[in-house]
Amino acid sequence: MAVTFELIRQCSHTGARAGRLYTPHGVFDTPIFMPVGTQATVKTMSPRELEEMGAGIILSNTYHLFLRPGHDLVAEAGGLHRFMNWNRGILTDSGGFQVFSLGALRKITEEGVTFRSHIDGSKQFLSPEKATEVQMALGSDIIMAFDECVPYPAEHDYAKQSTERTTRWAERCLKAHTRKDQALFGIVQGGMYKDLRAQSARELVGLDFPGYAIGGLSVGEPKPLMYEVLEHTVPLLPKNKARYLMGVGTPDCLIEGVHRGIDMFDCVFPTRVARNGTVMTWQGKLVVKNAEYARDFRPIDTECGCYTCRNFSRAYLRHLFKAEEVLALRLATIHNLYFLLDFMRRMRQAIIEDRFLSFRDDFWHMYEKR
Amino acid sequence: MAVTFELIRQCSHTGARAGRLYTPHGVFDTPIFMPVGTQATVKTMSPRELEEMGAGIILSNTYHLFLRPGHDLVAEAGGLHRFMNWNRGILTDSGGFQVFSLGALRKITEEGVTFRSHIDGSKQFLSPEKATEVQMALGSDIIMAFDECVPYPAEHDYAKQSTERTTRWAERCLKAHTRKDQALFGIVQGGMYKDLRAQSARELVGLDFPGYAIGGLSVGEPKPLMYEVLEHTVPLLPKNKARYLMGVGTPDCLIEGVHRGIDMFDCVFPTRVARNGTVMTWQGKLVVKNAEYARDFRPIDTECGCYTCRNFSRAYLRHLFKAEEVLALRLATIHNLYFLLDFMRRMRQAIIEDRFLSFRDDFWHMYEKR
Repeated sequence: MAVTFELIRQCSHTGARAGRLYTPHGVFDTPIFMPVGTQATVKTMSPRELEEMGAGIILSNTYHLFLRPGHDLVAEAGGLHRFMNWNRGILTDSGGFQVFSLGALRKITEEGVTFRSHIDGSKQFLSPEKATEVQMALGSDIIMAFDECVPYPAEHDYAKQSTERTTRWAERCLKAHTRKDQALFGIVQGGMYKDLRAQSARELVGLDFPGYAIGGLSVGEPKPLMYEVLEHTVPLLPKNKARYLMGVGTPDCLIEGVHRGIDMFDCVFPTRVARNGTVMTWQGKLVVKNAEYARDFRPIDTECGCYTCRNFSRAYLRHLFKAEEVLALRLATIHNLYFLLDFMRRMRQAIIEDRFLSFRDDFWHMYEKR
Repeated sequence: MAVTFELIRQCSHTGARAGRLYTPHGVFDTPIFMPVGTQATVKTMSPRELEEMGAGIILSNTYHLFLRPGHDLVAEAGGLHRFMNWNRGILTDSGGFQVFSLGALRKITEEGVTFRSHIDGSKQFLSPEKATEVQMALGSDIIMAFDECVPYPAEHDYAKQSTERTTRWAERCLKAHTRKDQALFGIVQGGMYKDLRAQSARELVGLDFPGYAIGGLSVGEPKPLMYEVLEHTVPLLPKNKARYLMGVGTPDCLIEGVHRGIDMFDCVFPTRVARNGTVMTWQGKLVVKNAEYARDFRPIDTECGCYTCRNFSRAYLRHLFKAEEVLALRLATIHNLYFLLDFMRRMRQAIIEDRFLSFRDDFWHMYEKR
C-alpha cells in the first residue's frame, strides 16, 4: 500500500489546511506533530504510552540506527516497526542533517559524505544510495531524500551549489528507491534565499515526489525570517501533497507553520525540555522542578487530560526531579507530548470549522501575556 | 480499618504457609514480595505499571522521605498514597537500617540517633518517637518500629546490648503510635546469636505487635547461616500474625524464607540488577546487554507474561541498554518485578495445593543447573 495525502479542508483566510495521511501503518489526521524517537525509542516512553496519547506517526533517525544497532540487524528483526514494537507510522530522516552537523568530522563530495561515528570514531560513508538503502531496510512508511542542509548564515554562492547538489542527490535517491510500500519525500533547501528556494522547489516538484519537506529552517535564523521563507516557499509546492517542516516544534512555530500551509512537523523540543523539568501549559511554560512548586498540589495543567495531569501534582513532580527519579522524566515527557498533540488536534478542529484565524489570535493573546 | 493477617493454609511438611493480609488499601495474598519505592516511587515504574504486574504492597523509606520532600509535605499532600498516586498497600520502614548504615556519619544514644543527611550534610535526629511520628504522617498501612540493626559480624556483648535497646525502643514506638488505621510491626534482632534471637522474639511477642519482622539478616552473613537463624527464630513468633523478612529478595532466599514460614519480603535486588541489564528467567539470569543477545529476537523469557516479554526482544533490549535509553531500565524492571511476583504466586499455589516441597525441589534443580 502506498502513502498518500488527502486534502480535507483549506482555510478560507490563511494557508492552513486539514488533511489526512494514508500509510501502511494507519491513517493520520494532519496537521500532525511527530514525536522524535532518535534511537528506535521516543526517549523515556513506551510504545503503549505513545499510542494512548494519540501519537500517529513518529520520527526516527537513519544516522543513529545506521551506526547502532545497524540497519541490517533491524531488517533481520523484521523492520523498525517490529523491532521497537510500534505499529503506527514511522518517518525516518535521511541522516543528512546529522552528518552535516558533525562539522570537522565529515567531508562532503559529490558522491556522498565521509564521516567519523560519534560512538566509536570509526570511518563511515553515507550517500543518496546508501541512505535510501538503509531506510528501505528500516522499512519506515515515509523516508527522506539525502540532502545537504544549508547552514545559516551562508553565502549565496555556497547556498546555490549546495542546493543544486541536493537536487542531484534527490534524483539519485529516487533512482535507488524501490520499495512500493514506503514514500520517499524530497527536501526543499535554498537557505534564506528566495531565488534558491524557488529553484529548489521547482526542480524537486519536477521530480514528482509523493510529498515535500522544507529543510534548512530553524537552524539559527530569526523566527520572522523563517516565517518569510515559509510564506515564499509553501505556495510553490503542490496542493495535493503533504508538506513537512523539519525540526520545528515549539507552539508558536507550529501555529505559524500551520498558518502557512504546513501539514507535518517533528522536533525534539517537547521531549528534551521535559527531561530538564520544563512543561507546557495553556498559561505558558512552567519549570516544575523550581522551589515554588514544592507545595503546589495542583496538576501541571488543570485543562489537560494526560496521564500525568490526571494523577499527579506539581509537588510530586518537583520531588521526583529533585530526587533524580526516572519517573520525573517520564511524567513530564508524557505531558509535553500530549500537550503538543492536543494542540495540533485543536488547530485541526479550528481549520475544519473555519475559525483558524481566531484560534490563532487567541493563542497569541495567551502566548504574549505569559 | 485495622491491618490483620489470616492464615489460610499451613504446609504439612514445611514451615511454608499461605495467608492473606487485610489493610485499608486492599487485601493481599501471602507469601508476598514488596517492590521497593525508596523515594515515593519504585524506580523507573509508574503506579499503573505496578498495578498491572499485580504488585499489592510496596515498601517506601522513612529515612529518605523524612529528608526529602519531608513528611510534613507528604501529609499536606494527603499522605503518601495520594502523593504518589498509589492506592494499594504501603509499608514504610523506620529509617533505622538507613541511619545505622551511615557509619561514621551517625551517633547512637539511648534517646535516638543523630546523623548527617546524605543530601546536604545537615544534622538530623531520629528516635523511636520521631520515626513513629514521621510514619504516622506518611500514612502507610504498615509501619515499622525504630530498631538497631546488629551488624555482621558482631561480638555477643555488643549484640546483646543493641538487641535489648531495640526492645526498649519498640516499647517507645508502641507508646508513640496512635493511628488505628495502620499497623506497627516489631522487629526481631539478635544478630546471629540464637539466645539473643530468642530473647528478642520473647520480649517483642510480649509487647503484642500485630506483626513481626525479622531484621538483621542478609547483612553479609553466609546464606546457610541466615537459614539457620530463620529456622530458629520463626517458630518463636505467633502463628496468627504476619512474618516479614526484611531486605531479602533473591529467588533462592525467597523460596528458603517461605520454606521456613516467612510471609512477606522486600528487596531492591530485582529493580537494581534490572537497571544494570540483568534479568531473571526460569532458566537462570541473563545479562541482556551482553553482545551474545545482539541478534537474539526471542523475548527475555518465553514463559513470561509481562509487558516486556509480550512485546520486545532481547535484541531490542540490548540495543536500548547500549544506547543508554531510559526505556531499557523500564522494560528490564517490569520483567524482573513481574518475575518475582509471579514466583511468589506460584509458591503460594503450591502451598495451597500442598505440593510446596516438590515445587522447591524443582526450583533448586533448575537453579543449580544454570
